[in-house]
Amino acid sequence: MKVLVIGTGAVGSFYGALLARIGAEVSVVARSDYEQVRTSGIEIISETPLGDYRFRPAAVVRDAAELSEKPDYALLCVKVVEGVDRPALLKDALGPSTAIVLVSNGIEIEDEVAKAFPDHELISGLAFICVTRTGPGKIWHQAYGRLALGNYPNGLSEKTKALAAAYERSGIHCIASENIVTARWQKCVWNAAFNPLSVLSGGLGTNDILTAQEAFVRAIMEEICLIATALGHALPSDTVDRQVDSTDKMPPYKTSMLLDFEAGRPMETEAILGNAVRAGRRTGARIPHLESIYALMKLRELKASLA
Amino acid sequence: MKVLVIGTGAVGSFYGALLARIGAEVSVVARSDYEQVRTSGIEIISETPLGDYRFRPAAVVRDAAELSEKPDYALLCVKVVEGVDRPALLKDALGPSTAIVLVSNGIEIEDEVAKAFPDHELISGLAFICVTRTGPGKIWHQAYGRLALGNYPNGLSEKTKALAAAYERSGIHCIASENIVTARWQKCVWNAAFNPLSVLSGGLGTNDILTAQEAFVRAIMEEICLIATALGHALPSDTVDRQVDSTDKMPPYKTSMLLDFEAGRPMETEAILGNAVRAGRRTGARIPHLESIYALMKLRELKASLA
Repeated sequence: MKVLVIGTGAVGSFYGALLARIGAEVSVVARSDYEQVRTSGIEIISETPLGDYRFRPAAVVRDAAELSEKPDYALLCVKVVEGVDRPALLKDALGPSTAIVLVSNGIEIEDEVAKAFPDHELISGLAFICVTRTGPGKIWHQAYGRLALGNYPNGLSEKTKALAAAYERSGIHCIASENIVTARWQKCVWNAAFNPLSVLSGGLGTNDILTAQEAFVRAIMEEICLIATALGHALPSDTVDRQVDSTDKMPPYKTSMLLDFEAGRPMETEAILGNAVRAGRRTGARIPHLESIYALMKLRELKASLA
Repeated sequence: MKVLVIGTGAVGSFYGALLARIGAEVSVVARSDYEQVRTSGIEIISETPLGDYRFRPAAVVRDAAELSEKPDYALLCVKVVEGVDRPALLKDALGPSTAIVLVSNGIEIEDEVAKAFPDHELISGLAFICVTRTGPGKIWHQAYGRLALGNYPNGLSEKTKALAAAYERSGIHCIASENIVTARWQKCVWNAAFNPLSVLSGGLGTNDILTAQEAFVRAIMEEICLIATALGHALPSDTVDRQVDSTDKMPPYKTSMLLDFEAGRPMETEAILGNAVRAGRRTGARIPHLESIYALMKLRELKASLA
């Protein structure tokens, strides 16, 4: 199995390393970390039973065009934010039979890639993980690691099943999903509430938010469920209860959007919240809580851009 | 006319000084500024045709109990925030015929005082002004100054008319309002939108907020109108249009809530927004945008309290 990971951030490094550990030939496209990764590989410190691992990629390149052979899978592991041109990053990575794998947060983020490469199999992936890049070529895996994979817009190809099976062998749980878009809405229920609220509150962790404003969190989550239903991706009726319960049991957690905000990096406001709001508007669903937090996130971004 | 001003912040100093200028006997209860005000009075620098003025109160006391004579009017000019005990501040200021005058932001802020002093005339007042305390005994009057006065819960007594007439003579416009509660809801339309949004955006001025998110601002304003109508204080149908237009024409403006937030002072979240939301809940009105910004303000305050 030949794999190319595009993006050596926390997510790409972690999920590339897992496949390398079970014998896949995994190369990486590195940008800012290129020198470090080429010289020393990527050091992964894990707090989980997976243990620590030094990931030495088969090849380290600055651009996919430098590779002599095209991969079976091109894993694009980048944040979906303005200024990241995903088709440009993928263009030179693809041979005729290369499957594209997107491992990203957000909703309705596949279409741009599907339209750019209509002849390629597109696998949409969701990562449930706490993992952070602590420095060039240094990744800290705090908890979790589950992955969900499925073909876009739906179905499960042999190639997708093979990738999911490989991940299962690597030591994480990987769900092969016939309806990955539904799974994406399910994840969005949590993300659309806690990511914006962590930023708009000025930096609260998930537990403080939930304890202080559970009804508000639930109202946001219910609106995501409403949109998902209107789009034919109805979620189980206990979705909100389960998300609230599991957040209650999680350790206090800083969301990825808050980490990005505090570090002055672009936030996935559009991928997570803006795309959900636009989908809601298309369906005519009543989503005033989502509209409110989206408007406020845009004001917060405007303020940050003026500073 | 004997007047006692309780609170030598920007608002109390300004509206006390106006009456002193036209010959009223105006004393003040000063707290942190006591020494400065006793020694040098209050210096008011005005950017308006009113001009600069040094206000030398008839008496400066730390507590109303120190005064030998009770006033005709006790003007309470304090922010309505947790920890400020308004009945305690008024208790020793009142003779049998003293009218209480509240000059404060917010909605439904009169009841606590009305219940504490049921035998006193209660005049509710609204100040439309940009005025800032720049140091002990130093006030900077940037713009505006209009006042609205009326009896609570409604009507206009001779005493209220006399006070309004005095303010008119002092050089500002003072509206004597038969329905001051309606006027308070009208002011809340602006306050409930721009005050929270200036804080939640991280510090944007009113113009940036309006330019970027006019629809959101209007949605919040419409919900205040909805509550006012449900409570029998229907506002003119062009209220929101007029507030938006006039904000558009104002110079960029930092709200009082933002100034408080940046200075680490308590904010009038409950007086302006919490009371409006509770009124809305009582009426059963649909107010999801107000609920959203209220929940977020409470999260912001929680974060500030943990810092």
